[in-house]
Amino acid sequence: MARIEAVYRLRSPEEDAGAMARAIAYEQTVELPENLVDDPHVVENVLGRVDGVDPDPSDAGAFLARLSYPEDASNYQLPQLLNLLYGNVSLHPQVRLVDMRLPESFLARFEGPGFGVAGLRRVTGVTDRPLVASVLKPRGAPVERLAALAGDFARGGGDIIKDDQNLFDETLEGFRRRITACARAVDDGNATSGHSCLYFPHLAGPDPSLRWQLDLVSELGLRGVLMSPMVLGLDRVRSLAGTYDLVVMAHPALAGAYVCNRDGGIDHGILLGTLFRLAGADISIFPNTSGRFAFTPRACKAIRDRSLEPLGELKPMLPCPAGGMGFDDLPRLCRDYGSDAVFLIGGSLLGHSDDLAVSTRRFVDRVGELSR
Amino acid sequence: MARIEAVYRLRSPEEDAGAMARAIAYEQTVELPENLVDDPHVVENVLGRVDGVDPDPSDAGAFLARLSYPEDASNYQLPQLLNLLYGNVSLHPQVRLVDMRLPESFLARFEGPGFGVAGLRRVTGVTDRPLVASVLKPRGAPVERLAALAGDFARGGGDIIKDDQNLFDETLEGFRRRITACARAVDDGNATSGHSCLYFPHLAGPDPSLRWQLDLVSELGLRGVLMSPMVLGLDRVRSLAGTYDLVVMAHPALAGAYVCNRDGGIDHGILLGTLFRLAGADISIFPNTSGRFAFTPRACKAIRDRSLEPLGELKPMLPCPAGGMGFDDLPRLCRDYGSDAVFLIGGSLLGHSDDLAVSTRRFVDRVGELSR
Repeated sequence: MARIEAVYRLRSPEEDAGAMARAIAYEQTVELPENLVDDPHVVENVLGRVDGVDPDPSDAGAFLARLSYPEDASNYQLPQLLNLLYGNVSLHPQVRLVDMRLPESFLARFEGPGFGVAGLRRVTGVTDRPLVASVLKPRGAPVERLAALAGDFARGGGDIIKDDQNLFDETLEGFRRRITACARAVDDGNATSGHSCLYFPHLAGPDPSLRWQLDLVSELGLRGVLMSPMVLGLDRVRSLAGTYDLVVMAHPALAGAYVCNRDGGIDHGILLGTLFRLAGADISIFPNTSGRFAFTPRACKAIRDRSLEPLGELKPMLPCPAGGMGFDDLPRLCRDYGSDAVFLIGGSLLGHSDDLAVSTRRFVDRVGELSR
Repeated sequence: MARIEAVYRLRSPEEDAGAMARAIAYEQTVELPENLVDDPHVVENVLGRVDGVDPDPSDAGAFLARLSYPEDASNYQLPQLLNLLYGNVSLHPQVRLVDMRLPESFLARFEGPGFGVAGLRRVTGVTDRPLVASVLKPRGAPVERLAALAGDFARGGGDIIKDDQNLFDETLEGFRRRITACARAVDDGNATSGHSCLYFPHLAGPDPSLRWQLDLVSELGLRGVLMSPMVLGLDRVRSLAGTYDLVVMAHPALAGAYVCNRDGGIDHGILLGTLFRLAGADISIFPNTSGRFAFTPRACKAIRDRSLEPLGELKPMLPCPAGGMGFDDLPRLCRDYGSDAVFLIGGSLLGHSDDLAVSTRRFVDRVGELSR
């Protein structure tokens, strides 16, 4: 049987690293002390295996433990895969999941992004440069104000305008009113620009209102939504992404708990790259190296690479650096990410000039120049 | 309007702490720079407020920032509450959510635990001591072996036997066969002991198989299930807990990413206590101070206190210390947790003697003696 490979970085004295790796192999599969595991079938077919433990060449004092698990220990499902790779390991403060390889036979059970890079290029009509996205905010602004922003962004030739993840409505009727107004404004802006800007409402309701929201978004002919997989549940997003023919733009809310702890957690590329892609995200938003949250260049590159690398038959996902970037960051963004990316510019676009359509046009044109 | 209070511990130079607290207040509600927020309605009714920033008396070099948010910024829903309290904050590696108070008017929208302490005492018939629970494992063992363990535990007078969270089945038919066998064995054991041991299967499937599993568990007359809220999604568990008349035993898989990072994340008591209780958990499993994961005594006490403290009209939840505890730990467990708790003894009960029924009887009797 094919195996799921996982590499954990252990922060432990050298003499303990081997025992720690073995403890993880037992913990994640049988959760029993070694002396109680004697059934040959279990040892052969269920137990995790330690394939090697070596010093981490890039991190003095840390060790890389290479483990593998029989792929059926995931039950070919996202919840059980999370549990297998990191469920109880999460309770070890000195263990980080830093690499993961999933076999083709596992990946074949997943649909992944419904649109992917080619699909997003098709629906936006943008073939030769990164997409430019922005955000409707703040919560509390009148619907007319949000709709005007959306319309101006579309008129300026922007590609994707999404709700802020703090934006929501108390009632489904309020949601309908707000997103209808924003969608119309974007349509009007598109009529002026001749471009196909997309509007993605934010969805965060509990069941069953989340499905009503999705039904409404589909009825209105919108092409996508913004969801936070770690807030809603990664597998819930996968299930919804597989049910509706909508672009899924994934927001990293809560994900920092996993990725931002150097000694523990899950590597940026695995969570915001591979796992979000498995959950059906077409676009994965994350904080860029500059800006107010400042992921490291290495973390950003890992997310980018994992978004675009071959992954079974799954479509590639667009990495979406964000978080306080401005006009002057565009050259570096184009250099670091190349053409297959979405650049999310929020507050700094709103503050760039008094006319959002003019600002948007300036950003889009600059991205176009830099990509030639 | 009532306000949701949150206290964040900031690891920052003294001169930056105030600005960091303000940045959080803006980030979590409007996600805009201060100079772009001028609408008086937004400032008054939407923006987070910094109520104070003081040195942390128990942590030199850290600061406690007391913030509050208008309660409707949560939309009275669990996903938006998570997002409000910790969504983008999670991306700050030096900020931890260490305290939270929810107003009565917010709490009134939640059902909380369906059974709670009194309900669990009613269905188990145990009125005067902590409950004793154990685990069916390992994955890969034949169904007959798991059923025999379940039966022996019931025969010995145990209170709750749950599936290991690594236990699952490839098909619903396999699930039916396994849990039916275990449930019958527990019934037979109960007929011998005269006691009402409960059996809780583990649920982790994707939609819609999760609902099929829940329907089957209900049809078989079982009283509860084991679910991992951070694996399935906290609000998905809340939704399911509110739909089915079943005890919800919550497993902390993945939760370590939030609680085990001293500088970031969410306090143990808030996540595994209050938030799990809001999601409808009747029992919250967590690693005890001794054992292989070793939460601190302070963390365990916080979970216990938050499980049992008054919380609107929500029923109290039973704290369930676990993680490698043995017979000799029982006096300390009884002293630390008192009577309103579940003690989860897994591997050490299986290894205690050759006869699981005898071992169980010994554990239960000892807990009874210590509680008198």
